[in-house]
Amino acid sequence: MTNPYAQDLDKNAANFTQLSPLTFLARAANVYPGHASVVHGDRRYTWAETYARCRRLASALAARGIGFGDTVAVMAANTPEIYEASFGVPMLGAVVNTLNVRLDAENIAFCLDHGEAKVLITDTEFAPTVKAALPQVANKDLLVIDIDDPLADLPPGIGERLGAMDYEEFLATGDPEFAWSLPDDEWNAISLNYTSGTTGNPKGVVYHHRGAYLNALGNAVGWNMGHHPVYLWTLPMFHCNGWCFPWTLAAVAGTSVCLRRVTGGNIFDAIADQGVTHFCGAPIVMNFVINATEDERRDFDGTVQMMTAAAPPPAATLERMQRMGFEVTHVYGLTETYGPAVMCAWHDNWNALPIEEQARLKSRQGVPYHVLEGLQIMDPETMQPVPADGQTMGEAMMRGNIVMKGYLKNPQATDEAFRGGWFHSGDLGVMHPDGYIELRDRSKDIIISGGENISSIEVEGVLYRHPAVLAAAVVAKPDDKWGETPCAFIEVKEGETPSEQEIIDFCRANLAHYKCPRNVVFGELPKTSTGKIQKFKLRDQARQG
Amino acid sequence: MTNPYAQDLDKNAANFTQLSPLTFLARAANVYPGHASVVHGDRRYTWAETYARCRRLASALAARGIGFGDTVAVMAANTPEIYEASFGVPMLGAVVNTLNVRLDAENIAFCLDHGEAKVLITDTEFAPTVKAALPQVANKDLLVIDIDDPLADLPPGIGERLGAMDYEEFLATGDPEFAWSLPDDEWNAISLNYTSGTTGNPKGVVYHHRGAYLNALGNAVGWNMGHHPVYLWTLPMFHCNGWCFPWTLAAVAGTSVCLRRVTGGNIFDAIADQGVTHFCGAPIVMNFVINATEDERRDFDGTVQMMTAAAPPPAATLERMQRMGFEVTHVYGLTETYGPAVMCAWHDNWNALPIEEQARLKSRQGVPYHVLEGLQIMDPETMQPVPADGQTMGEAMMRGNIVMKGYLKNPQATDEAFRGGWFHSGDLGVMHPDGYIELRDRSKDIIISGGENISSIEVEGVLYRHPAVLAAAVVAKPDDKWGETPCAFIEVKEGETPSEQEIIDFCRANLAHYKCPRNVVFGELPKTSTGKIQKFKLRDQARQG
Repeated sequence: MTNPYAQDLDKNAANFTQLSPLTFLARAANVYPGHASVVHGDRRYTWAETYARCRRLASALAARGIGFGDTVAVMAANTPEIYEASFGVPMLGAVVNTLNVRLDAENIAFCLDHGEAKVLITDTEFAPTVKAALPQVANKDLLVIDIDDPLADLPPGIGERLGAMDYEEFLATGDPEFAWSLPDDEWNAISLNYTSGTTGNPKGVVYHHRGAYLNALGNAVGWNMGHHPVYLWTLPMFHCNGWCFPWTLAAVAGTSVCLRRVTGGNIFDAIADQGVTHFCGAPIVMNFVINATEDERRDFDGTVQMMTAAAPPPAATLERMQRMGFEVTHVYGLTETYGPAVMCAWHDNWNALPIEEQARLKSRQGVPYHVLEGLQIMDPETMQPVPADGQTMGEAMMRGNIVMKGYLKNPQATDEAFRGGWFHSGDLGVMHPDGYIELRDRSKDIIISGGENISSIEVEGVLYRHPAVLAAAVVAKPDDKWGETPCAFIEVKEGETPSEQEIIDFCRANLAHYKCPRNVVFGELPKTSTGKIQKFKLRDQARQG
Repeated sequence: MTNPYAQDLDKNAANFTQLSPLTFLARAANVYPGHASVVHGDRRYTWAETYARCRRLASALAARGIGFGDTVAVMAANTPEIYEASFGVPMLGAVVNTLNVRLDAENIAFCLDHGEAKVLITDTEFAPTVKAALPQVANKDLLVIDIDDPLADLPPGIGERLGAMDYEEFLATGDPEFAWSLPDDEWNAISLNYTSGTTGNPKGVVYHHRGAYLNALGNAVGWNMGHHPVYLWTLPMFHCNGWCFPWTLAAVAGTSVCLRRVTGGNIFDAIADQGVTHFCGAPIVMNFVINATEDERRDFDGTVQMMTAAAPPPAATLERMQRMGFEVTHVYGLTETYGPAVMCAWHDNWNALPIEEQARLKSRQGVPYHVLEGLQIMDPETMQPVPADGQTMGEAMMRGNIVMKGYLKNPQATDEAFRGGWFHSGDLGVMHPDGYIELRDRSKDIIISGGENISSIEVEGVLYRHPAVLAAAVVAKPDDKWGETPCAFIEVKEGETPSEQEIIDFCRANLAHYKCPRNVVFGELPKTSTGKIQKFKLRDQARQG
């Protein structure tokens, strides 16, 4: 048997190029140089300008010795600078690490140390946290660049510059025609995203150029975004690189409308004044829309698309969103899957169903993105798919090109996450007969509040340090505004009578504020015969109370 | 300097999958099993059915020993079978070779021999050609399967079955749940497309799974096709695998409306009755639309998208198409670039311009597809881009992931095509200041008639064999219906006086009919001082006459 295709058909410079979303930026700048790329208040950039600014950033970083495999961290609100870093940093083969601005100083210091950041670009809004973090960072040569945003409108006392220079001064040192290059290998790292795990320190999820390229297209095709969408940044760009949307928007030459603070009024203003067509966010963003006051609401034409994750939108919410002119797409993913990797792909004939039925169908996380090649609900013991009966529980597992490279400097966690050749999401659910998955619970102890992951174990760790606490368990409590909030159940030591406020204050002194329990319930904790706390009973109690 | 990303972040089964458009078929079948996939008259398939039929085809072929690196040739009209072969054959790691049904027996035999086809799936409409070709084929074990289409409505005497069995019988031997697999390497060949070169035999252009996957997405994103388009097959599926649209339609879960014969009436019927939203084709297809009779025309709602290539649509044509409810997108590509790889991306503000100005802008071939990483007009001697002045001529060159692997068993032609690290298109043009390319001439002697490439050198070769011909030159003559037709200029030998018809008849006896000159002009040929025929003068003459 001969195989005529086995020879003389090799890769060469003409027929093979490394996949990278950087090519989308270059294309947008070449094809639509005058089209709006990024808008932030009075600051309006075109694609030609954004491309030039990204090249300036790369050039300025290169002059400071930044190159292949170096980490550049960014602590920023949704402003043009973090958008530009998504391109300018990888242009050098360097890795962009967008930090969660809600973390406390200790965690920020951990990320900077663990990621071996050589540069930190940081918004003056977060100067208090960063200032507290910097002395804890091992790298005393860390180059700090300030983003000093005139639109920031910061409270008195906030806004201190910490760095060597301001971002605009830094850009001015760069060359707008800097000759950047594609990665030598599309498998090279493009970004680093720290995720709150259930135990211990945050884990550094590493993305590669190939996956970023593919999920950029996956968003565009899966959500049917069309050319030139106008995208409002209600989703933090530090979350999974903004779910890859910075790169998607370059591919479809869309316009990013920046947003420093998410309020109902800001969302309606952006829709009415900027022509926003698309935005993303946790359920709390939907709540901002629904609960906007009469003064905040604005009229607009057409339908605005919203993509939401973290919790299924309830029927009442969906109905109100629809009536207000919003079409909601439910997606699911994790930091480890480049953000959204699963979507509740809609069937046209479902539109004829009653709204409750539509909500039931839409509450399912759904089917794989075009660029995710495997999605199953599996028994993690046998690694066999569960029956597609909508009842048998298993763990959601993914495989394919938009699954992370792994956790940085943590081969044990990486191996654990990938055991059996699938990424173990830690989320439990069922497979419906029509091939749509639906999550029913989480196997890890994660609470998702306002789109942020909170590890119940981390919170419990703090609670156990309180002198009055004998045993503690933290579970999710459903919340109209935040989706979920942490609810602490505490068994106190003999003779101790701490108040709820005392416990909460203790947590606030030791944790980022968003992680602190909103409710504290005192009493004996339900336990198994072997002494294991029965969290499912506490979840029931939290749900009812 | 350490690089923390250099270790423990390797590819594995969870985070890396070979790119292949086969994943789009599986996804469409899983997500939209009941949605219409392929429609051919009364035959209507869903995605679940098309997927099952493709798996049956793969299974039936596997049972005949077909596997990795084997070629399966298809000689077919635009019917479900050729669509299915685009998936069923690659499911085995085998290579699908769709044959140009307009070729003559000699060329068909050449393709089957050169491509080492092990199976030929052939429509009975083409039995006369295939019957004449088969005795010339070296492989006497070639398995021949007939497509015997009840809708074919063939003329008397045409429609003979030549093969071992009928396609439907063959499918019936296969397993609808056949366990196919993705390629071991996305660089593996997925298809083989013979292209008429300027000299000698056709060259076998080899595509790979990666490129097919990417251009499938490139079509969807670049043309903004949306979900569930209804696509009419006015473009032959044997041309560059239907410009990758079979794979695109699986990605966007669109519906293929098959079409055996392209007429104005058929196009309007499909739009009015089947809800067609998109179709592609050479300018001749546009002419069918414009020149449709009152009886043929049908009313329809909305705008239908048409993608056209091979020649820029003239202003009058564009205007008439627009008035009739069609929006025309101009693209450019070659067999070597998976079909369309360049598009005249439209700017919204161009809509306000006069129609002549719009036509002028749209006559430009444009900018790279999202998935083509390099496009330049270069000086082929220096391999430097020409100035972007809209005047300096150079050769259109491409590089990137949708450039072919190379020519099968023709390393010399491959090396020649890829010299200097770019694919040399052979087409001459200019680069405009706004980054759009415009072709001005072809450096190779190619005439494009009804979307088919005709080598003037091949036609001249036949003419020189006529006993009365002293010298011959064939050039393109503009034609309202076909775009171009071959026009022969002939210098006869002393004392000879052949008629135009005699020359044409001689060509028809020795060439596929579409390649034969429509006009013959006798007289002395203009030559340079060194005796080289000055074709540009003949082109001018053909244009005016």
